[in-house]
Amino acid sequence: MGTEIERKFLVAGTGWRGRGRATTIRQGYLSSVKERIVRVRTAGERAMLTIKGITVDATRSEFEYEIPPDEATIMLDELCERPLIEKIRHVVEVDGAVWEIDEFTGVNRGLVVAEIELEDEAQAVALPPWVGEEVTDDIRYYNSQLAVTPYSRW
Amino acid sequence: MGTEIERKFLVAGTGWRGRGRATTIRQGYLSSVKERIVRVRTAGERAMLTIKGITVDATRSEFEYEIPPDEATIMLDELCERPLIEKIRHVVEVDGAVWEIDEFTGVNRGLVVAEIELEDEAQAVALPPWVGEEVTDDIRYYNSQLAVTPYSRW
Repeated sequence: MGTEIERKFLVAGTGWRGRGRATTIRQGYLSSVKERIVRVRTAGERAMLTIKGITVDATRSEFEYEIPPDEATIMLDELCERPLIEKIRHVVEVDGAVWEIDEFTGVNRGLVVAEIELEDEAQAVALPPWVGEEVTDDIRYYNSQLAVTPYSRW
Repeated sequence: MGTEIERKFLVAGTGWRGRGRATTIRQGYLSSVKERIVRVRTAGERAMLTIKGITVDATRSEFEYEIPPDEATIMLDELCERPLIEKIRHVVEVDGAVWEIDEFTGVNRGLVVAEIELEDEAQAVALPPWVGEEVTDDIRYYNSQLAVTPYSRW
């Protein structure tokens, strides 16, 4: 079990492009209820099953298990709620901080968000110039919500 | 991935008691929607996370992963839907066939069902004298349904 503290921002520029590594992510939900999210994800050659509890003060319980990619693919194709989330994750290091930039495709095409994981809630974050408005607490940007009401329908 | 073919019966007698081994099972659901059931179970010293698709002709897709029991216990205590399912599973062999008899406790106390797993749907089953009415297709007896509408409220 881990406890995740993350902040999420809209991406306002393109200064991050062409840096870091990119991974294609495909994910879906077996449960998108906020009290008990169950996510299936394939990321490159790996696959994970992730269970998350409710978020309290930007913190939530998270359990993650690696599973066989072919089994994850069957769950994504046959079992998960529709639509699926598809995105390219770019991992970019800026001044020692690791940013994950999610460039959505599919039904959420056009949306780009950047996330940073923190040690504790009070930690200061140096924002690169391409980081825009913070949306940490805006549930519309939760991936589980983007699977219910995708960006293309906002 | 496995495909499960099971038949389920009410238990009408006590001829199975005191035979075989008994395991205490505690289980809950992260999703109890029939198209995508996600079950957390502790059984004795072990714990499993199980994902099941929809049942078609007594057959359904099933994925099962062993997880750390302490993580399963947190999920059961804090994340799963209420109420939890609690039961004692008795595994009894009769004439070479393995029967799983679930004696429910907690909110489903009073209910006892017996299940047998088959190689294929057409396989003949020799019914022991304590096996009563078949309830394979009665969704009220699905454990996921017993967690929504427990036997004590029928």
